[in-house]
Amino acid sequence: METLRLYDFLPSGNGYKIRLLLSQIGMPFERVEVNILKGETQTPEFLSKNPNGKIPLLEVKPDKYLAESNAILVYLSEGTEFLPYDRFLRAQVMQWLFFEQCSLKPCIAPLRFWISILGKAEEYKEAIEQKRESGYAALKLMENHLQSHNFFVGERYTIADIALFAYTHVADEGGYDLKQFPAIQAWIERVKAQPRYISIKEELQH
Amino acid sequence: METLRLYDFLPSGNGYKIRLLLSQIGMPFERVEVNILKGETQTPEFLSKNPNGKIPLLEVKPDKYLAESNAILVYLSEGTEFLPYDRFLRAQVMQWLFFEQCSLKPCIAPLRFWISILGKAEEYKEAIEQKRESGYAALKLMENHLQSHNFFVGERYTIADIALFAYTHVADEGGYDLKQFPAIQAWIERVKAQPRYISIKEELQH
Repeated sequence: METLRLYDFLPSGNGYKIRLLLSQIGMPFERVEVNILKGETQTPEFLSKNPNGKIPLLEVKPDKYLAESNAILVYLSEGTEFLPYDRFLRAQVMQWLFFEQCSLKPCIAPLRFWISILGKAEEYKEAIEQKRESGYAALKLMENHLQSHNFFVGERYTIADIALFAYTHVADEGGYDLKQFPAIQAWIERVKAQPRYISIKEELQH
Repeated sequence: METLRLYDFLPSGNGYKIRLLLSQIGMPFERVEVNILKGETQTPEFLSKNPNGKIPLLEVKPDKYLAESNAILVYLSEGTEFLPYDRFLRAQVMQWLFFEQCSLKPCIAPLRFWISILGKAEEYKEAIEQKRESGYAALKLMENHLQSHNFFVGERYTIADIALFAYTHVADEGGYDLKQFPAIQAWIERVKAQPRYISIKEELQH
């Protein structure tokens, strides 16, 4: 098997998803840091690998690239315990992956970026206020689901949990108050208790 | 096999994706119109089916619902010619499905909604201007890809094409000038030439 190469940016929640799954699968990989704050995803060289100019990007084979964090999660988890075999359960995983990218991440991730990564809460004040309500609505939907489920799909830890965990567990860095969501908090602890868990700040040793 | 029930809104690009695929697979279904302009996705009854309050929603079995248009496409296309069997090609389909929902649709669909469905171009002028540039960037990326490919993945018509086609072919209704993109225009004609193609305005007879 070839060694996978992951183009990544350590503070990225989308990048962290892939690091976390690879750690839990136990699959060795080479990590290449691409600093988005220095425009390193917009160089001609990087754009030749991913025309959309985004990390994470997985080099599956020499010169064969896969973009979109949740597409990478699906690719890597096929045939493992992290993606259900049952067709309807697998479809529910997909549903949550699209919910994460369409309804959760657009309201949670930019606030964390503006407030905690750029340190520019004042400058982005209006945009932050615009997104706050939708962000809380997405979290409330997750809270309601977790009030009667231990994990998002099939009562087992899957890539749906990995995808949703990435930005949710650091939502406080975007000014979200997670104390309002006890079921989310309990689920966060269940995710952190999974074998081979690594934190978002932890660079894998390999 | 049970009859599928699709909760749908005829002008919706996301709903159209499912109608188009079901037509091309030749799978019978019952369509239930849910008028989002009248708040029908926000009623307690609809929210009990999809807490995210969105169409399309597929009732796979009695009381078993699947949301998110692209998750529904994946579910319905498994085992058909519209989803490649090869693992890397399938991953590329997923990549385009997430690109569609994350980079294309958020800039294309709202403009069509504001301008052509609500008829309120003036009221939404500022928001329209804000999204225009990213929308053209997403179209440009697709144009570049189609300059050397007939379809998005594996040189065959797949659900990646269906997903990307839904909002792209009516982008002019959101004020986008598709004449700038000859490769997209040629691809639109190739999609329209597929067997059992139906238009977005056409209600299926069944």
